[in-house]
Amino acid sequence: MVGEKDGLLKLALWQTAPIHDPDAALTALGQTAQRARALGADLLLAPEMTLGGYNIGADRCHTLAASDDALITAAARLAQKHQIALAVGLAIRGPEAPFNAGVLLDATGKERCRYHKTHLYGDVDRTQFTAGAALSGVVTLNGWSIGLAICYDIEFPELARALALQGADLILVPTANMIPFDSVATRLVPARAEENAIYVAYANYIGREGAFHYGGLSCICGPDGADLARAPADQPDLLIAELRHDALDRCRKQQHHLADRRTDLY
Amino acid sequence: MVGEKDGLLKLALWQTAPIHDPDAALTALGQTAQRARALGADLLLAPEMTLGGYNIGADRCHTLAASDDALITAAARLAQKHQIALAVGLAIRGPEAPFNAGVLLDATGKERCRYHKTHLYGDVDRTQFTAGAALSGVVTLNGWSIGLAICYDIEFPELARALALQGADLILVPTANMIPFDSVATRLVPARAEENAIYVAYANYIGREGAFHYGGLSCICGPDGADLARAPADQPDLLIAELRHDALDRCRKQQHHLADRRTDLY
Repeated sequence: MVGEKDGLLKLALWQTAPIHDPDAALTALGQTAQRARALGADLLLAPEMTLGGYNIGADRCHTLAASDDALITAAARLAQKHQIALAVGLAIRGPEAPFNAGVLLDATGKERCRYHKTHLYGDVDRTQFTAGAALSGVVTLNGWSIGLAICYDIEFPELARALALQGADLILVPTANMIPFDSVATRLVPARAEENAIYVAYANYIGREGAFHYGGLSCICGPDGADLARAPADQPDLLIAELRHDALDRCRKQQHHLADRRTDLY
Repeated sequence: MVGEKDGLLKLALWQTAPIHDPDAALTALGQTAQRARALGADLLLAPEMTLGGYNIGADRCHTLAASDDALITAAARLAQKHQIALAVGLAIRGPEAPFNAGVLLDATGKERCRYHKTHLYGDVDRTQFTAGAALSGVVTLNGWSIGLAICYDIEFPELARALALQGADLILVPTANMIPFDSVATRLVPARAEENAIYVAYANYIGREGAFHYGGLSCICGPDGADLARAPADQPDLLIAELRHDALDRCRKQQHHLADRRTDLY
């Protein structure tokens, strides 16, 4: 792999309106994966509940979750077909209400990480989903240590810190962030990157979905917190950024927060 | 007190160049306290090591620390004289090297909180100071729950979280933040405010001190992370902002991070 040879990961991020029909979502995912691969990307990140939409009601979440294995298999075929890793969101069968999940599939279609959103946001999450019981952990893909978080999760510094302490170089965050909460995209996500000296990618929706109006502003932030790529608030976009191990190393020579923690005090 | 009647705290923040002579620093502090009180402020926050400067070498820190009681007594007289609470930084005698300290004096001159910087930054702190052994805790002043942090401390989300969980409404941060680390003032400090739904005030230096060039940009951030007041990068300033309990309450109805933490997972 390119990424393993020179420490580079070319990351693509898909900002789109929600797509409620899962077959249509898979078609759009496939087209986007093809475009991203043509641009040289190794990995494509998509928004929360990519395969069916987010603010869709409990019944619809149940229905989608009943097809979880089929949806993951279909996404894995797209990864394999277009030779690109995919991080996508979907509903996965739970004990009662389904989980709000993210899966990371490698470019051969193999599932490398499955994560259930642990911090449920407000009524929309609590009426539709069951909270996950564990953080994602960190998996290695193309020589990069990667963790997952979903939307509200990344607002908690504890979660990003835990993944960074497990060695994460990059946290992938499918999200569905509404207006007026732009500061999550513009302040908190960059802060998570900077305070841990890691890359953070935050893939949001645009447009309206029921009572929600999504605010876009998807981003890929570098380990100093600066934007490597930033999408507009109201247009679909495909961001591309090159993540580099040498840039991580350079940052970590200046930013010692992980080592300088006073774990005796908190 | 005004603050106790209507839930308002009028906070002043002093951005200045470092002042190495402690008598000159006390004189300038008194003049600034008088100005701040004339503008209606209840509390004045000053930069790190207000009384003697920051990048001054280990010997000078020892010398200053030998006068710690006298300096605190002099600052307390200024608080009493000008009827304004003061949060100031100074060197305080330690077991070997002194502590890099902050003290909070109320408007009667009574010492309400004393804190020793717990996260030492780089060689400058490690050659000059001993690290503190405890967080500041939270004290009540004019009906406001207040914690202290010093400079590098506030870059650690764990510290701000711990004080917020102890009930802090406001964290006062004397600092000496150099160029090129502006993002601490513009990103991390606002993030600490937003993710905890608290006020955070960050009082920086301007100008040069040895090899350091301080970046100003002192700020008072509201519980939504937005700037209530922001100083320029390179000019002295006296910021004033009104902190309100009703604004805190409004924010906390929307921002539930403290309650939504998954303490079973981290």
